Amino acid sequence: MSTKAILALLTDFGNADPYVAAMKGVILARAPQVRLIELSHEIPPQNVLRAALFLEDSAFCFPAGTVHVAVIDPGVGTARRILAARIREQIFLAPDNGLLATLLRHDSEAEVVSVERPDLYLPVVSSTFHGRDIFAPVGAALATGKVDFVTLGPLVTDWVTLPEIDPVIEAGRITGRVLYADHFGNLVTPIRRRHLEAVEIDPTAMRVRIAGQSITCFCSTFDEVKAGQPCAYIGSAGRLEIAVNQGNAVEKLGLVDVSAGQIEIIAL
Amino acid sequence: MSTKAILALLTDFGNADPYVAAMKGVILARAPQVRLIELSHEIPPQNVLRAALFLEDSAFCFPAGTVHVAVIDPGVGTARRILAARIREQIFLAPDNGLLATLLRHDSEAEVVSVERPDLYLPVVSSTFHGRDIFAPVGAALATGKVDFVTLGPLVTDWVTLPEIDPVIEAGRITGRVLYADHFGNLVTPIRRRHLEAVEIDPTAMRVRIAGQSITCFCSTFDEVKAGQPCAYIGSAGRLEIAVNQGNAVEKLGLVDVSAGQIEIIAL
Amino acid sequence: MSTKAILALLTDFGNADPYVAAMKGVILARAPQVRLIELSHEIPPQNVLRAALFLEDSAFCFPAGTVHVAVIDPGVGTARRILAARIREQIFLAPDNGLLATLLRHDSEAEVVSVERPDLYLPVVSSTFHGRDIFAPVGAALATGKVDFVTLGPLVTDWVTLPEIDPVIEAGRITGRVLYADHFGNLVTPIRRRHLEAVEIDPTAMRVRIAGQSITCFCSTFDEVKAGQPCAYIGSAGRLEIAVNQGNAVEKLGLVDVSAGQIEIIAL
Repeated sequence: MSTKAILALLTDFGNADPYVAAMKGVILARAPQVRLIELSHEIPPQNVLRAALFLEDSAFCFPAGTVHVAVIDPGVGTARRILAARIREQIFLAPDNGLLATLLRHDSEAEVVSVERPDLYLPVVSSTFHGRDIFAPVGAALATGKVDFVTLGPLVTDWVTLPEIDPVIEAGRITGRVLYADHFGNLVTPIRRRHLEAVEIDPTAMRVRIAGQSITCFCSTFDEVKAGQPCAYIGSAGRLEIAVNQGNAVEKLGLVDVSAGQIEIIAL
Repeated sequence: MSTKAILALLTDFGNADPYVAAMKGVILARAPQVRLIELSHEIPPQNVLRAALFLEDSAFCFPAGTVHVAVIDPGVGTARRILAARIREQIFLAPDNGLLATLLRHDSEAEVVSVERPDLYLPVVSSTFHGRDIFAPVGAALATGKVDFVTLGPLVTDWVTLPEIDPVIEAGRITGRVLYADHFGNLVTPIRRRHLEAVEIDPTAMRVRIAGQSITCFCSTFDEVKAGQPCAYIGSAGRLEIAVNQGNAVEKLGLVDVSAGQIEIIAL
Repeated sequence: MSTKAILALLTDFGNADPYVAAMKGVILARAPQVRLIELSHEIPPQNVLRAALFLEDSAFCFPAGTVHVAVIDPGVGTARRILAARIREQIFLAPDNGLLATLLRHDSEAEVVSVERPDLYLPVVSSTFHGRDIFAPVGAALATGKVDFVTLGPLVTDWVTLPEIDPVIEAGRITGRVLYADHFGNLVTPIRRRHLEAVEIDPTAMRVRIAGQSITCFCSTFDEVKAGQPCAYIGSAGRLEIAVNQGNAVEKLGLVDVSAGQIEIIAL
């Protein structure tokens, strides 16, 4: 791996506290040549699913050899393992709490190890901040090539998975949950075009029910409906989404609790 | 252009979603040597004026050759054009929605082209995320020098402009609107020192009316008034601003809707 | 100092306004080789104590030679000095308002100068944005090695300090204030293990009183208490903290004003 390897950071630490800064300091002290890229520190606190979806929708835009360090870690300090995974020529370092499960599900050739290399950690490891004490120095060692992936620890195959988010598919009907609302208030669902095709639902002849309301418009750009009107579309990550042209779907549909939102699609 | 060219990103994507990360991945995969600098991703959603003012107040602090990629793009996927502009030795890439209008108004020597180079885009272009599929790879190609500005597409002169924000100037009186409140609650207006001079208003002998209140104090530093008192001053970008010493002008003046705020200045 | 020197930025500017972008532009125009690292721009507006604690808890993770530029500057434009300090092989540039006081208290060998070098500043210095006009160009000059620390200005020893935050220690009793709540709602206090030891309080046999409630659980990882239960622990920066397992201590304890929170520890 060249000295220009990318180390990409993803956390739920926010930016007001010194946590991210401390991680960056440790990384730069140990890997002065690495390209340090911040993916986000705004994953909602302890929301492992959201982080897993974030990686699924952005990681493979990065070049081969990128080291992704993802610290959404509600179990920090407990016996939970730390995993390193090699997936499609990229490396991922994360707690074993489901964060990598979505990526691993799609790649039967991935290699996963349990990280057990105290020699790489900071000399004193706290019980509440493994981001600084373990993830940062191990990520730095991987990005600089000072350590080889396969030497990090034993191969594992029994990683923690996430609760099922895939939609339920029946004849002419798909049901699922809203995964999250994005920054623009667009609702992101786990339904993909292949789900529609599997039950022969034509997107231009379907009814979406969500939050007690019906949407029959399927569009490819937002301006195919009037300003303030909702429409369904296949978003940029391949998921069915609900947006409101020049507006905010969460507000327009009156969703109080986005992650409790159920969605139903019926062929017309 | 050297391999150390700067690519500066400005979006309204926020940091919680994978959108900015995906753009960075595409840029780094195609332009591994570029200096990737983030201007902001906190432009209020779809607020083109705010982004235009942001660029006006910061872009020319950057060195010559910087490539600014600005994606505030409510019309993504529609027939709106994408513009590239060469302004004072810097390059700007943005949707044709007024984002560059403020910069272009001040530079009669600027060159503007409509970007029409599908060969530079990602192989599949979505209809809702041109930031990743068009802006990122075109920006990367410009920053690495792989493509020459003039080959991006035909010259255009009919770009979209923004609604007028300049103040109205009359004998002894200037009226305008509040552009926005900054992070500290300071109110930023479009009124400049030259507007005051044009109608011979002496800042030390004028009355500012805003939100039903009168301010007669004009200061150069905030501590010229007591803590909690408002004053007018010429801000760091040359605009007349209203601040409250050790306080927040939005809260102090009770502005409910900042962008609806009217300001009137009368010579005393 | 090599051309790969790190310049680390800390401000209370937020990211929605062009202020940070303008600083970055000035730095990159003057120091194209510097590594520009962002610590945070989310220090609460004008909260000098919070910035001082941020630096104390993160700065020395960075490698020797790092130049920290910290602009939390409510007195901008007044006669307040600007300080540069050399502390444990790192350099700090900040207004003389207490921001560096915490670091300086711990290092009797630190050198501090008053920055008086208009030749380094931007040609026109505004009265409200020294971040762009003074801090950025002086930081760039330090990071590139174009200027030597000792030539910045006269040595000073009478820097501004912060109000006392240390806890009061009595026989079997420690009282203090809550410093702040972090992004997860954990309460950070100024109490350290040495304070407990000084009055022979055994953490496993003490009662913490805060917000009218009693906590007797002392833990090393959050999961030693049930979900939703509060516990005290020594945090990753060595301070006693109060957290709620899988929850938010601010919400759980009903703290309306975190910084007014008093904490009392009594030996059982």
